[in-house]
Amino acid sequence: MSAVIDTPTTTGTTASGGTTRAGAFGHATNLRCRACGAEQQLGPFYACFECFGPLEVAYDFPTVTREQIEAGPKNIWRYRSLLPVPDDIASIPNTEPGYTRLIQADNLARELGIHKLWVKDDSGNPTHSFKDRVVAVALSAARELGLEVLACPSTGNLANAVAAAAARAGIKSVVFIPDDLERPKVLTTAVYGGTLVAVRGNYDDVNKLASEIAGEEEGWAFVNVNVRPYYAEGSKTLGFEVAEQLGWRLPQQVVIPVASGAQLVKVDKGFGELVSHGLVEDAPYKIFGAQATGCSPVAQAFRDGHDVVQPVKPDTIAKSLAIGNPADGPYVLDVTRRTGGSVADVSDDEVRDGIQLLARTEGVFAETAGGVTIATLKKLVETGQLDPDAETVVFNTGDGLKTLDAVADRVGPAATIDPTYPAFTAAGL
Amino acid sequence: MSAVIDTPTTTGTTASGGTTRAGAFGHATNLRCRACGAEQQLGPFYACFECFGPLEVAYDFPTVTREQIEAGPKNIWRYRSLLPVPDDIASIPNTEPGYTRLIQADNLARELGIHKLWVKDDSGNPTHSFKDRVVAVALSAARELGLEVLACPSTGNLANAVAAAAARAGIKSVVFIPDDLERPKVLTTAVYGGTLVAVRGNYDDVNKLASEIAGEEEGWAFVNVNVRPYYAEGSKTLGFEVAEQLGWRLPQQVVIPVASGAQLVKVDKGFGELVSHGLVEDAPYKIFGAQATGCSPVAQAFRDGHDVVQPVKPDTIAKSLAIGNPADGPYVLDVTRRTGGSVADVSDDEVRDGIQLLARTEGVFAETAGGVTIATLKKLVETGQLDPDAETVVFNTGDGLKTLDAVADRVGPAATIDPTYPAFTAAGL
Ligand SMILES: Cc1ncc(COP(=O)(O)O)c(C=O)c1O
Ligand SMILES: Cc1ncc(COP(=O)(O)O)c(C=O)c1O
Ligand SMILES: [Zn+2]
Ligand SMILES: [Zn+2]
Repeated sequence: MSAVIDTPTTTGTTASGGTTRAGAFGHATNLRCRACGAEQQLGPFYACFECFGPLEVAYDFPTVTREQIEAGPKNIWRYRSLLPVPDDIASIPNTEPGYTRLIQADNLARELGIHKLWVKDDSGNPTHSFKDRVVAVALSAARELGLEVLACPSTGNLANAVAAAAARAGIKSVVFIPDDLERPKVLTTAVYGGTLVAVRGNYDDVNKLASEIAGEEEGWAFVNVNVRPYYAEGSKTLGFEVAEQLGWRLPQQVVIPVASGAQLVKVDKGFGELVSHGLVEDAPYKIFGAQATGCSPVAQAFRDGHDVVQPVKPDTIAKSLAIGNPADGPYVLDVTRRTGGSVADVSDDEVRDGIQLLARTEGVFAETAGGVTIATLKKLVETGQLDPDAETVVFNTGDGLKTLDAVADRVGPAATIDPTYPAFTAAGL
Repeated sequence: MSAVIDTPTTTGTTASGGTTRAGAFGHATNLRCRACGAEQQLGPFYACFECFGPLEVAYDFPTVTREQIEAGPKNIWRYRSLLPVPDDIASIPNTEPGYTRLIQADNLARELGIHKLWVKDDSGNPTHSFKDRVVAVALSAARELGLEVLACPSTGNLANAVAAAAARAGIKSVVFIPDDLERPKVLTTAVYGGTLVAVRGNYDDVNKLASEIAGEEEGWAFVNVNVRPYYAEGSKTLGFEVAEQLGWRLPQQVVIPVASGAQLVKVDKGFGELVSHGLVEDAPYKIFGAQATGCSPVAQAFRDGHDVVQPVKPDTIAKSLAIGNPADGPYVLDVTRRTGGSVADVSDDEVRDGIQLLARTEGVFAETAGGVTIATLKKLVETGQLDPDAETVVFNTGDGLKTLDAVADRVGPAATIDPTYPAFTAAGL
């Protein structure tokens, strides 16, 4: 049973003591514990005051129609009534992520023996990953809560998104990354002029440090720590867009990469909201999770039939998915089992193959996370877990330019020639 | 005076002898010489049979309304009635470029002392440059003409776009690049699985080789050589989008990077078409061109008051703009002079500053070409050529991830620390 719990912050006041404006969080009413159902006020909180369970945003939604959404901007703010953001969000400086292309992938479908397949390509976002979505929502929450620093621990893409969003919003950012991160992700964070801190350790170490700092520093919004409930809602927009772009209907199968697992869980939540608003027909769908074998604690738990996830020490080229202790792991297990999907994993070589397969067949250059997802799709078909006759959407959530080393040994010029026609014909290409 | 010239290809048949379908080129009627006005039939031609002048596409347009456009897809095909493409173009596999964000850039405006500024950010395109637009139109022309290989000489971005578009369309690509091209652009081309040829020389050498091959090989569509008239039309969509995104009106000033100059010239053409269709009010606008000093033949000609452009040997970090002998140079001079704009150039260090300035103020990470454009905008304000009180749009046409070396020495982590809170506080960040 749920009950509203008193929180250290009074209703209507922000972390820094100011008052929040009416509708600062749209139609969100409070935070609710996903473990015990206890409710507490909207604030910079992520753990239940009762049981330390993870909090999520609860709403009292108005009626939302397809027409309202379609009249909105061509970015995630078209779904603003379903997010914890104010109604004027689109006019407050932000990176304007979302509404990325959903391409019908007939060539890839043919190679995999799938009847009908689409790629949701989120590399078209401002910093070229789906993280721009979640950060945009977190930034709004930070602003409305009066928090003055946008921060995060990151496996790379989040770092890029936070630094860019903060620059655009004109606020300070502090980003923590593992010190072995890919050079493109380091430079693409640092260029925005915020503070970038390299940490000796892996992502889980960086994450632990961030939680510690979040507990000590006043006025910091760690997007994926203390404002995580708002942040995570941003991933619902991937689900919303897929449904809208399919002509307002749910796909029958979706394959989604899993790091912390938040994205997968929130896509399911988003589908559910579309159904409960009558925006799409209530039709069954299966959600599948994709991991790299070198960091596959959720896939392992799925196979073992466990409800909890045993942390691992990551070792994979898919660094953006290298979270060994995934916060939403148990919820991923729940969603995939409930919908009839599964969680599978693929080797680093399969990841490389996946990147090349998607590039060669559809002209989409994914980062390692996308390689994981494509390779997992292939494996799911081969092992009979995914129905090749059901309509399927596979997510590409990141960009190949950020993980060039994954393919550097595999592709390159066929020849280097002198600039003459005889030299060209002699090359026999 | 113009006259229709007989061409080696009969109306209604393609280069490979097949018949073109009705409306294969939309409302395009023929090709017209920009120098002498002579007309010839639609085909894989780029030079006038009379005077060797450059050809462009001529149309017999139907009525086009804002409503028709707004009802179209969220990509360049919403403007299909104004392009040489068939009406069903959106449903033929293509990369679906365009309709990228136009962000109001208040932070950058403030730093530059400009009243009202927008950034048209084309890095959101499928391969992260505006080249996806022109290639999509060239691909359509190639298909309708029965050409079976998509090819190009490229300074990098075009290479990425051609290889990706060909992969998605399921046709062969052959891409020629200078052998000193940035690694990201090489890998991002090669990954799509077409044929990539490195050529010992600079872009102008590669371009010359391509023209030679285009003259020898049957069935090849060199997007920027023999199907260049169609290709170039794709850049009009940048102008269309800016106007639509401003609420169907023309900006007062636009700053555009110049390599061959085609983009700048076609944005002007696009603005003119919007006016002649009554889609926007006929209001004066000024177009400004941006070059890197190390390859600034058009800026030089502008300053010297010349009508022709003296070729140069490029030496700049802005490799995507390093065309020493720009095909559209004289037309850039014409457009910028006619509209009251100008062409200016900036040093490589200013390019780097420009990249950082845009990233820091607006969270947009541009490639060197974008750095050129931002730095030129700054210079135009400082020298009084650009009116800071007039509404201005500046183009970012490429992506910082492709030219990381430009900023690699300038940005990076502020510190590397152990994963402990004391280590963090000790770092004094
Ligand atoms: C490209 C990419 N895809 C997917 C994910 C997984 O997201 P989540 O942590 O929500 O599972 C990440 C996480 O960093 C990512 O960077
Ligand atoms: C990123 C970028 N911007 C601008 C241009 C200039 O285009 P144009 O040759 O049409 O002048 C290029 C050309 O390659 C480019 O790559
Ligand atoms: Zn609880
Ligand atoms: Zn002529």
